[in-house]
Amino acid sequence: MNPVDLTLYLVTDSTYHTEESFLHTVEEACIGGATIVQLREKGGSSRDYLNQALKVKEITDRYHIPLIIDDRIDIALACDAAGVHVGQSDLPVSYARRLLGPDKIVGATAKTVPQALEAYVQGADYLGVGAMFPTTTKVVTILTAPATLTEIRHTVPIPVVAIGGLNRGNMDILKDTAADGIAVVSAIMKAEDPRSAAEELKKHMIELREQRTL
Amino acid sequence: MNPVDLTLYLVTDSTYHTEESFLHTVEEACIGGATIVQLREKGGSSRDYLNQALKVKEITDRYHIPLIIDDRIDIALACDAAGVHVGQSDLPVSYARRLLGPDKIVGATAKTVPQALEAYVQGADYLGVGAMFPTTTKVVTILTAPATLTEIRHTVPIPVVAIGGLNRGNMDILKDTAADGIAVVSAIMKAEDPRSAAEELKKHMIELREQRTL
Repeated sequence: MNPVDLTLYLVTDSTYHTEESFLHTVEEACIGGATIVQLREKGGSSRDYLNQALKVKEITDRYHIPLIIDDRIDIALACDAAGVHVGQSDLPVSYARRLLGPDKIVGATAKTVPQALEAYVQGADYLGVGAMFPTTTKVVTILTAPATLTEIRHTVPIPVVAIGGLNRGNMDILKDTAADGIAVVSAIMKAEDPRSAAEELKKHMIELREQRTL
Repeated sequence: MNPVDLTLYLVTDSTYHTEESFLHTVEEACIGGATIVQLREKGGSSRDYLNQALKVKEITDRYHIPLIIDDRIDIALACDAAGVHVGQSDLPVSYARRLLGPDKIVGATAKTVPQALEAYVQGADYLGVGAMFPTTTKVVTILTAPATLTEIRHTVPIPVVAIGGLNRGNMDILKDTAADGIAVVSAIMKAEDPRSAAEELKKHMIELREQRTL
């Protein structure tokens, strides 16, 4: 199992950004304290995805933050990213693990305890659990209850990051869960000041972890 | 360089097919004489692409025909395909070669002599050159002249397959080119009798190769 700090997990979204403002936002998030960054780009060409990954990796490398590639194991290999994140419609975790080898991070989305167990058995290093709230960046068909997140966290011995519509205003929902970290898209990508947004999210996530007893 | 028989190159298209009729068509093409099959699926999920690749590979393995995966190196690795085909908006040939190693087939699309040289230098085993004619399966912005195909074939020491709108009725355009083979989508995928279509295309391609002097 590869150790991974999920405290503040940025998932990128380049929608409504120029390339310049996109890369600037990612860098500000890194300065502000993101502990891990996932590049998530849907719909473009493979070459565009690779080129964007190479540019983002220059930034994350500078701040010694692991870069995770959403879905595309070939892109992760091509840019020597730290790992991949696979959802239920991406390649199964077992394939990702086999193609990436033991030293890369493989994260998986799990909405239920059975999905979490399956991902863990197949070699996942961490789980993304959600959606906690409705979100504009994905079509969410079903929300995950905070209690389910905690049940997942107590079932598998790997860290769990909560995802889906989370922001500074509603993240207290994680107070009574066992989440190791918070994953955000819009709360940073659409923030006026992404650096401050990252700082505040991280600070409060650490407070929530320290306060709770679960 | 990995040897590859391009005589009759089937590029799949599952549009307007049920899964059953799609797999049946691919199998009939294999029986009819396809020498190589490329699975090309755009727009679906990675998991769907993998599942389809695994099913098609069962067929191509049965007939000892190499299976090439369009664009997705991770899918090719996951299903242990014979190789990949990359276009100008996919990963560069150099990346495909590095990720797949020396023993897998890497094919590349080239519309011009400079593109052909670049692909060869980066490690391509063969080139797909076209579009020779307008086609309904891709947005074609520019056609490739038969003379350009021949120039490409005489510039790089790897085989060339002609692609783009080709069928039994218009393939005589290849008579005065140096094409090693013909690539088709609709001429087989939409044929009423894909086995006979494959047989006729292959037979005539061999005749064209034998007749010409280029």
